[in-house]
Amino acid sequence: MKVRSGRRTRDIPALWYEPRKVVFIDQRLLPATFRLYEARSLRQLAFAIKEMVVRGAPAIGAAAAFGMALAQETGADLGKAAELIRGTRPTAYDLFYGVECMLKAASEGKDLREASRAYAEDIVGQCHRIGIHGARLIQSGNGVLTHCNAGALATIDWGTALAPIRVAHNAGKKLFVFVDETRPRLQGARLTSWELQNEGIPHAVIADNAAGHFMARHEVDLCIVGADRIAVSGDFANKIGTYEKAVLAKENGIPFYVAAPASTFDRRTRDGRGIPIEERSENEVHLVGRTRVTPRGAMAWNPAFDVTPARYVTAFMTEKGLLPPARIRDEL
Amino acid sequence: MKVRSGRRTRDIPALWYEPRKVVFIDQRLLPATFRLYEARSLRQLAFAIKEMVVRGAPAIGAAAAFGMALAQETGADLGKAAELIRGTRPTAYDLFYGVECMLKAASEGKDLREASRAYAEDIVGQCHRIGIHGARLIQSGNGVLTHCNAGALATIDWGTALAPIRVAHNAGKKLFVFVDETRPRLQGARLTSWELQNEGIPHAVIADNAAGHFMARHEVDLCIVGADRIAVSGDFANKIGTYEKAVLAKENGIPFYVAAPASTFDRRTRDGRGIPIEERSENEVHLVGRTRVTPRGAMAWNPAFDVTPARYVTAFMTEKGLLPPARIRDEL
Repeated sequence: MKVRSGRRTRDIPALWYEPRKVVFIDQRLLPATFRLYEARSLRQLAFAIKEMVVRGAPAIGAAAAFGMALAQETGADLGKAAELIRGTRPTAYDLFYGVECMLKAASEGKDLREASRAYAEDIVGQCHRIGIHGARLIQSGNGVLTHCNAGALATIDWGTALAPIRVAHNAGKKLFVFVDETRPRLQGARLTSWELQNEGIPHAVIADNAAGHFMARHEVDLCIVGADRIAVSGDFANKIGTYEKAVLAKENGIPFYVAAPASTFDRRTRDGRGIPIEERSENEVHLVGRTRVTPRGAMAWNPAFDVTPARYVTAFMTEKGLLPPARIRDEL
Repeated sequence: MKVRSGRRTRDIPALWYEPRKVVFIDQRLLPATFRLYEARSLRQLAFAIKEMVVRGAPAIGAAAAFGMALAQETGADLGKAAELIRGTRPTAYDLFYGVECMLKAASEGKDLREASRAYAEDIVGQCHRIGIHGARLIQSGNGVLTHCNAGALATIDWGTALAPIRVAHNAGKKLFVFVDETRPRLQGARLTSWELQNEGIPHAVIADNAAGHFMARHEVDLCIVGADRIAVSGDFANKIGTYEKAVLAKENGIPFYVAAPASTFDRRTRDGRGIPIEERSENEVHLVGRTRVTPRGAMAWNPAFDVTPARYVTAFMTEKGLLPPARIRDEL
């Protein structure tokens, strides 16, 4: 992805493997500060996932794979490493998928540094193909609404929901992106806006509350979001608020697409009821930056994800093309 | 309303008239700081409405009425005062209604200090009656979702949406309130939570994104919101995000009530298309307290209200009882 600082523009991924360390763009500090975070131990790597130095399902999967490579390179026990990594966050299927792939590769005697790099390259390639397939659905002049950050930061490069937007923009299509700010952690305001700005794609940040208003006023032609886990039924988990936008899109006759690579589809989860939802600290609601917004002593509830039933999904945008919910079972 | 500070509990209104000044609880500083704002001139009074020292449709109406009284007491031109006050904010009908009532009273030779106090007392009485009617719909054990602040701060006392909740709580019903934080200005997190805490009513603040999640999980039994303007058709304007919650309530089979006194019904506006929507500064989205959350140079769009079509409204809770949208025309 493009990263502009001062007059300089670099092209770097969200995370990568170096000898005896995993390097991340520290997403907690963006957009105010661009800084790299280096995990030289499994403990630091687990911290990076849990505390959201890195976030976004495919990027979490790559972090998990790199973590397993780090374990192998530093001579740690792979079973224990897998357990530690799996315990960091519960919802994104990619986390478990990444660990599983590396355990399989190790059992076949493979070098996990190579295997994890191949895993990461696969994701980038899949995301790019998602972009090529998805961009066909975007016409010049379209307003596109997205929620949270399903961009390069969430997927190493290209993104899932943002990949079709980038490909369409690069092809010269004029489009405008409505960026839900995505409380409580503001990944839309902080990260998606930053990525779109770096890529030069016109957009406006809006309060999550305003998405319905712009849909009802016919300013949104399609919605594209990412996913953290997709069940066999087509029900899927994604950032809290995704369900709201899906219902509003249906009510307003707006197509609603879910962009995700193969690693997000979980053949062992039959439907949405089987997806565990992470509850995060209530301080994410109480505090914005250092500002406390609620009264002292007040209680807050903070589910990090919600489940959107398959009936709200027009189609999944995958690396193989468009996949309606009813066809997932056959594909898996 | 109850205001607790330290060990002391006082019972005070959101705003009141004193000789040659209007006094407000400064709602910009809550919940961190409790401070009064005194408007001794029409300029200061207009500032208080425009900059949201006072907000909430019925309270804005009272501020307008008190402003006209201040104009009369200080010998200002009433026509010019009316013009200044009407120009502060466009959406709440109460603002225009309050000015209109005072112009009529003045033309009848009345003392506007008395007339404006009577206007304010009427609102408080209406809100209390809204509470008595509305509380009948709340059963012990219910989860009630509300958006923004339609409490005592927004209405002098009792509130509109919060009145039924207070009356039900005072009657010993056990209930739990889901408080949408209400970005961008966080009136739910800051003001509704503060009021409920002062009244001892159990509640949790949630991100606006989470309301749909709790509805889908059957934790919300009914929604009650306020209104800034209600058209003859039953379409109504309220804080941005209200439309989203109304659509989600309908989709989940949850009754959706709009609590409002007579002053909010606008017989001159036929339907939602005739309601002007205020666009506020994009800095309300960019900044939370002193924390900038978007990248420098990013654009934000910030409509302060949205319009919810009448078909999503189960009934209006008024001082006269429940009023289905289809019966508004007859009542007016």
